Amino acid sequence: MKYGIVAFPSKKLQDFANSYRKRYDTHFAKITPHITLKGAFEVDDSKVDEVVNMIQEVSKQFKPLSIHVSKVSSFAPVNNAIYLKVEPAEQLQNIHDALHANTFGNGPEYKFVPHITLAQGMSSGEHDDIYGQLRMTNVDSKETIDRIHLLYQLEDGSWTVYETFRLSGAE
Amino acid sequence: MKYGIVAFPSKKLQDFANSYRKRYDTHFAKITPHITLKGAFEVDDSKVDEVVNMIQEVSKQFKPLSIHVSKVSSFAPVNNAIYLKVEPAEQLQNIHDALHANTFGNGPEYKFVPHITLAQGMSSGEHDDIYGQLRMTNVDSKETIDRIHLLYQLEDGSWTVYETFRLSGAE
Repeated sequence: MKYGIVAFPSKKLQDFANSYRKRYDTHFAKITPHITLKGAFEVDDSKVDEVVNMIQEVSKQFKPLSIHVSKVSSFAPVNNAIYLKVEPAEQLQNIHDALHANTFGNGPEYKFVPHITLAQGMSSGEHDDIYGQLRMTNVDSKETIDRIHLLYQLEDGSWTVYETFRLSGAE
Repeated sequence: MKYGIVAFPSKKLQDFANSYRKRYDTHFAKITPHITLKGAFEVDDSKVDEVVNMIQEVSKQFKPLSIHVSKVSSFAPVNNAIYLKVEPAEQLQNIHDALHANTFGNGPEYKFVPHITLAQGMSSGEHDDIYGQLRMTNVDSKETIDRIHLLYQLEDGSWTVYETFRLSGAE
């Protein structure tokens, strides 16, 4: 099965993101707003326990994540996706790296750019139009996320939570 | 915030349910296929820890849930909803009752009829038409669910998982 690891921001921030996602994000129905910490990776059913143990170890190492959502940004021209930018932080980078350091799944495909997607699956014209509007949105929000989740993907692309891990460490 | 407690069946059963839900269930995009153990209840943010502790206690009491999905059924004429019937079982009833016995939320609104919804939000005519087709579906599936989840609802009606609880008891 395909698994992924995410952090869900507060309900307030999820509601804010969904007010745009419902119109602009083709993945709106597949998962609630989130920060991807480890993108989709394949795990054999017999190995899931190992993955769970690994994430447990990482979760015991890190304290709750401080995030600062600072503005609306875009991955264009690489990708017509618009997102809430989460300011890079050492702690976020370290937990990302720890979740990629182990033997399952792949190393990271891209440089880690923490974000909450607002819009994707658009043509370039649509992207430019929508980004022109959204980039003016005033966003400046700080919060703490005290848990991360391991999810698996159903055949239709939607994600179900497999397990929750509380961040209980010191780093 | 509004919270709820559910058990997600296996990916196989979720995929099967979604093959119908994508066409027939108006809540398709709000949550992946599930068995509701405790329907939406309001909890003050300051009391969430108490709810979590209570579910932890219940989870320590019960062993993984044996479920038997036996046929397609309908709540009509009470409600135009079609569902996968989960055979009533003492264990399921007991965990349901334990999750309703405590001081938060309300007691159960209805008699507990464990089920996985396939279709809802239809007119009576649509219901009769779709149920006429779906009731012929041959379903007979047994499995074990080793965890339950506490979820909260966003303003658009979709549900995010707050925490996972492994069923680790003996009952």
